[in-house]
Amino acid sequence: MITSATGPRPADFTDVRATNLAVVLRFVREHAPCSRADIAASTGLNKATVSSLVADLIERGLMRETGLTENRVGRPATMLVLDGSPYAAVGIEINVDYLTAIAVDLSGRRLLTWRRTFAGPAVTSGQAVTAVAALARRVLTRMTKEARRVLGLTVAVPGLVDLTGGVRIAPNLGWTDVDLAGDLGRALRGPDFPILVDNDANLGALAEHRFGSFGDTDNLVYVTGEAGTGAGVIMDGRLRRGGQGFSGEFGHIQIDPCGPTCGCGRPGCLEAVAGIARVSTDKPVFPFSPAEIEPRIDEMARLAAAGDRQALNALVGIGTDLGRGLAILVNLLNPQAVVLGGHYVPLASWLIPAAEAEVRRLVIAPDAGGCRIVASGLGYGAAALGGAARVLDSVDSGRLPGRG
Amino acid sequence: MITSATGPRPADFTDVRATNLAVVLRFVREHAPCSRADIAASTGLNKATVSSLVADLIERGLMRETGLTENRVGRPATMLVLDGSPYAAVGIEINVDYLTAIAVDLSGRRLLTWRRTFAGPAVTSGQAVTAVAALARRVLTRMTKEARRVLGLTVAVPGLVDLTGGVRIAPNLGWTDVDLAGDLGRALRGPDFPILVDNDANLGALAEHRFGSFGDTDNLVYVTGEAGTGAGVIMDGRLRRGGQGFSGEFGHIQIDPCGPTCGCGRPGCLEAVAGIARVSTDKPVFPFSPAEIEPRIDEMARLAAAGDRQALNALVGIGTDLGRGLAILVNLLNPQAVVLGGHYVPLASWLIPAAEAEVRRLVIAPDAGGCRIVASGLGYGAAALGGAARVLDSVDSGRLPGRG
Repeated sequence: MITSATGPRPADFTDVRATNLAVVLRFVREHAPCSRADIAASTGLNKATVSSLVADLIERGLMRETGLTENRVGRPATMLVLDGSPYAAVGIEINVDYLTAIAVDLSGRRLLTWRRTFAGPAVTSGQAVTAVAALARRVLTRMTKEARRVLGLTVAVPGLVDLTGGVRIAPNLGWTDVDLAGDLGRALRGPDFPILVDNDANLGALAEHRFGSFGDTDNLVYVTGEAGTGAGVIMDGRLRRGGQGFSGEFGHIQIDPCGPTCGCGRPGCLEAVAGIARVSTDKPVFPFSPAEIEPRIDEMARLAAAGDRQALNALVGIGTDLGRGLAILVNLLNPQAVVLGGHYVPLASWLIPAAEAEVRRLVIAPDAGGCRIVASGLGYGAAALGGAARVLDSVDSGRLPGRG
Repeated sequence: MITSATGPRPADFTDVRATNLAVVLRFVREHAPCSRADIAASTGLNKATVSSLVADLIERGLMRETGLTENRVGRPATMLVLDGSPYAAVGIEINVDYLTAIAVDLSGRRLLTWRRTFAGPAVTSGQAVTAVAALARRVLTRMTKEARRVLGLTVAVPGLVDLTGGVRIAPNLGWTDVDLAGDLGRALRGPDFPILVDNDANLGALAEHRFGSFGDTDNLVYVTGEAGTGAGVIMDGRLRRGGQGFSGEFGHIQIDPCGPTCGCGRPGCLEAVAGIARVSTDKPVFPFSPAEIEPRIDEMARLAAAGDRQALNALVGIGTDLGRGLAILVNLLNPQAVVLGGHYVPLASWLIPAAEAEVRRLVIAPDAGGCRIVASGLGYGAAALGGAARVLDSVDSGRLPGRG
């Protein structure tokens, strides 16, 4: 028996209105400036309903009128755009080697992007909370100065985050069972917005899906290229977290039973064979100082660009190993695109051709099931941006801020 | 930008009625016998709406009244049960070594289960169509005799089936690009019900989700144990097919770069290392005659049950290799259960403990992310039953048969 939780649910008129508010909000996000008549024509909602919904959205400060159309047959219409200027959505990303904070308004416009170095493995989780809280306070102060209300903060963590937001294991940070949302809430003295915690790869996938060049792709995998490697899995247009929230542990699939030992203690994990730690050496190099990662990546890219034979060979080798792992992922999930992020991005022009060849060789579906492997255009802020996107998603799904 | 295809859609009153018809149908499927008042109390629909929906469902022959309650405070109520007796949903499964046909009524009650031997690799796809059409005609004749209208036929194929139902590759049958639905429709002279074609593992997963012991599990993987190995992936309560319909190619993930060559020509595929072909030997044994498979499995189970050391060692080895593949799948998908089907079932008591140990060792999530590995209780008919389930799913999602 399929339980009613998975089946269709009864629709009542409250649901209908919340759904329709969200539909109108998203239509205007994508098609602004547009008129009430445009909304009615495209959504199939009748004009009276659209007018009532738009009035509600204007009252909540989510939408505003912006003058009349020209260049149009018939009576000029009042055009609508998203407003959202009174609001901000914030994401903060914790990495082994840096923190990133990003804030966006409701239309997704970037309000700030701050990145600072961080020595993740050298500090306790308590000290990390203090550092994140300090960064969050600076963001909140800035938003207050701009007269914006923060609707939510999502923190990205490179580790296993359960469905309640608890951090179970973050191997490269040395964390086990950290109540990050609770600790951070206390450090921020109980802010009036929700604090969520999520896996960095999941949030990277959300960011790609909302803001990336594959945003119209319903089946998408985002692969982090940080000190660790993880995947965020979007299937049928939504993030798929699995039974306990631990899906996408791509860095810990075994791709070589005889391979080097991973930071997690298991043999031959993808992260140990084809992770960022392998990029500047042909031996596993953990532990190394977080501060070394970015200079190493830059040096490797410089050498490869200069045609250094050893660097090029190393990158082909790592790309091929990464491709073996990606082929497994593509055989199981059949994504339309795999987006490589973080530190993989500066090396993408050497890694991707090698990875793609391996994917084509090892995926049984013709033409690798239509999957493309591409570098993220979101830079080092993908997970933080995804954190902000998760706040916007909750607005888009109908949890609107109260009337202004 | 998220396109409107993935976002909420406007709800109008036709949608609301179709949704609510489906809600009432499913509620009664799960809770019959029940009264109109029970439906209203549990679904939140008002009583007048429930009465109107029930009248519609009775008129379509999907529900009937069945006398009055007793043992209840207050006025006795008329009880409702699913009827569906005028209808049948049919699934047929093509395997390398057998065909199975299953028909169920709308409440999921089994009407017939027929299994016959089949020499898949020895015949052309045209000859296979003839064999499947002959079996389908017998099923249709039986349903006609029982005065049932067939609502749909789904055919399960062990191969890559695209989103339009085209069979792209079925390696163990030797098929490439077969329009099975079209060919079968012509062989059946254009029946008045839809013919769908789907991957066998996908349909096995649908059957487990609707009829199996893990039916309340929203994150479930079904693994076929036929001549080939495949997986059907259910996440968040629905089958996830990927971008082109080719997800779940578990049999062709590479688990040993130095492993034996698979039937698909690639080295070290799971199917070559831990598939059914490996069960009765420690060497890859393809090609072998389909008729040999079941006797070999039976012999292996007999030897293992009798404590034969060599057989037990072989099963532990295969279970461990299968576990390595399952660990990859569990790291990526975090299912609550992996259900092993087909020929794996008679050997499950030896394979599963070895596989489970390997999954616990290689999955990074604590306690394997809560995943259990279990044998299917659906026997050799899982994919055929899933074919029938897919027909029922289309009814449950609101595509109801016309009024009687």
